[in-house]
Amino acid sequence: MTTYSVAVIPGDGIGNEVVPEAQRVLEAVARSGGFSFDWTHYDWSCERFARTGAMMPADGLAQIRDKDAIFLGAVGFPGVPDHVSLWGLLIPIRRGFHQYVNLRPVKLLAGVESPLKGREPGSIDFYVVRENNEGEYSSIGGRLYDGLDDELVMQQSIFTRRGCDRVMRYAFELAKGRKKHVTSATKSNGISHTMPYWDERFAAISREYPGFTTDQFHIDILTAHFVRNPDWFDVIVASNLFGDILSDLGPAVVGSIGIAPGGNINPEKEYPSMFEPVHGSAPDIAGKGVANPIGQIWSGAMMLRHLGEEAAAAAIEGAIEKVLARRDSLTRDLGGKAGTRELADAIIGALPF
Amino acid sequence: MTTYSVAVIPGDGIGNEVVPEAQRVLEAVARSGGFSFDWTHYDWSCERFARTGAMMPADGLAQIRDKDAIFLGAVGFPGVPDHVSLWGLLIPIRRGFHQYVNLRPVKLLAGVESPLKGREPGSIDFYVVRENNEGEYSSIGGRLYDGLDDELVMQQSIFTRRGCDRVMRYAFELAKGRKKHVTSATKSNGISHTMPYWDERFAAISREYPGFTTDQFHIDILTAHFVRNPDWFDVIVASNLFGDILSDLGPAVVGSIGIAPGGNINPEKEYPSMFEPVHGSAPDIAGKGVANPIGQIWSGAMMLRHLGEEAAAAAIEGAIEKVLARRDSLTRDLGGKAGTRELADAIIGALPF
Ligand SMILES: CC(C)[C@H](C(=O)O)[C@@H](O)C(=O)O
Ligand SMILES: CC(C)[C@H](C(=O)O)[C@@H](O)C(=O)O
Repeated sequence: MTTYSVAVIPGDGIGNEVVPEAQRVLEAVARSGGFSFDWTHYDWSCERFARTGAMMPADGLAQIRDKDAIFLGAVGFPGVPDHVSLWGLLIPIRRGFHQYVNLRPVKLLAGVESPLKGREPGSIDFYVVRENNEGEYSSIGGRLYDGLDDELVMQQSIFTRRGCDRVMRYAFELAKGRKKHVTSATKSNGISHTMPYWDERFAAISREYPGFTTDQFHIDILTAHFVRNPDWFDVIVASNLFGDILSDLGPAVVGSIGIAPGGNINPEKEYPSMFEPVHGSAPDIAGKGVANPIGQIWSGAMMLRHLGEEAAAAAIEGAIEKVLARRDSLTRDLGGKAGTRELADAIIGALPF
Repeated sequence: MTTYSVAVIPGDGIGNEVVPEAQRVLEAVARSGGFSFDWTHYDWSCERFARTGAMMPADGLAQIRDKDAIFLGAVGFPGVPDHVSLWGLLIPIRRGFHQYVNLRPVKLLAGVESPLKGREPGSIDFYVVRENNEGEYSSIGGRLYDGLDDELVMQQSIFTRRGCDRVMRYAFELAKGRKKHVTSATKSNGISHTMPYWDERFAAISREYPGFTTDQFHIDILTAHFVRNPDWFDVIVASNLFGDILSDLGPAVVGSIGIAPGGNINPEKEYPSMFEPVHGSAPDIAGKGVANPIGQIWSGAMMLRHLGEEAAAAAIEGAIEKVLARRDSLTRDLGGKAGTRELADAIIGALPF
């Protein structure tokens, strides 16, 4: 029997409530799927930062280096600045483990209310493939004339050929099993060095995939198309910043921002990949047992798919869709009355075995 | 009688059809408003580029330097690359004349179909104030290891204190006559130099405006709020790139992307400001007399407001709203059968005098 060794980092706030529920669901599919989990728990969080002065130990990455995957809840707590909570945990893991793909599905599901008029379940169904390691998130930059009227601040964006090509190839490979349509997010009409380069690499990689259709839109009009024509898309590939924007806007458009999953993926599996929901630690509702666990459970399904357990992944996704469509057992954010645990129980109950 | 001397640059495609119609509307309000226009026509365009090798003459800026305003249609033609059409005309004018504010209204109007469910006319009504001169659109950058596997491209974003402060003050001044609520678009959790600086300046400028409410959102979740909670906003201030995105997404959300106006403003009036619709040159429908002139006419109203002709500006805006609500005389894009000229005539007919 295959055993997957997984680092579990619930993090802060509702992360501590939704992660254990998602683990129960994963255990349930493992039993019938003939595999098992070896979970190792890490308390890396803002709470740990408050106690010890660091989000994770200095050798944190080495401790989880050999895991098959990382299952993350959410990090962030009011009063802890972002450069601590994010640059002290989330971003070092993404970069340190070459998780150069951030993958988020955008799917209009029955039972989930979209803010858009007249869209049928299934009519919106695409993936945002975001470059997750470089680009606009480079930390290179600085300040001149501190405190004076002439003060200015610079920041470098850095796009490498390797960085562009590998995430674009990932997008094409993903589209291979779908509609073979890849859309590139650009802004080469305004951002005059990096974005024309992005277009150049997109053209080059497109030539490696004959039989695929491709298009590209500037990010400004692309966000407009998310609202006007969300049915146009199959797989969208975007830089770190543009992908960040599109992978929040996409879930918002289908009404799933509270339940959307995400993966930070090292496709070569040389390093562990990390799976986390799109939502944050939601300190306002933490500790009440009312948080919606679907984003975490769905992220667990993405983890299983990455580990090669496609049937188990599909079983969980099917159960989520069934429970959403039935509209009983839902949490408050979805207009129901159930608690975190009840909703997880309903999903376990809806598994096909 | 005051005479405004205006540089008219119809540009390409439908620019040549909608600009003359907007001029007719402006002439109509001028007659009863007791002012007049002295129009000077410039053929600066991709068509001129094809003929002469330049979008505008070398001394173009000097030629229009002393005008009271610039009235632009649209530039762009298939086959002419952006670095020619935009960096050869639009961007040099924005920068050369210190048009450091790009202003775009976002308003849900009766008779205009929004893609969002359940929103009433008037319930969405805000401005996007975009920094229009610096930030992510700096042209500083370059390439290393050309053509090799190690190839990389860099681009600097540059935020100056002067550049941030002046556009933020403009946003607060605009909010003064409205709900006194200013929202800042940021991404300081991911972009670690320029965006924290933007937040720092926003905090500093906010302190100059006691009695105002302020908030800030990271650009990813802010785009989500445009879809989920567009009624939250009054005035939004954003960097060049983020403002570019929000001022396309905003009009898309209220269904007005084909009719939205825009201003590139030098608030001190040391240089002429430029007014242009959000839509482009639409080569696919050019020459057919079917283009919707409302974006151009509405941009004319913004020009009048900038020139101090508030009553005339409001008269045009009122006439646009009336014609939209009546839903006769509309162009095809709005579900009607009228041509460009008929719709302009309807707006002239709906003027309050
Ligand atoms: C054409 C392009 C360079 C321009 C911009 O990004 O500024 C346009 O999108 C706009 O918003 O006016
Ligand atoms: C928290 C923040 C740094 C992060 C990002 O921008 O990458 C988040 O928005 C995400 O999308 O995972």
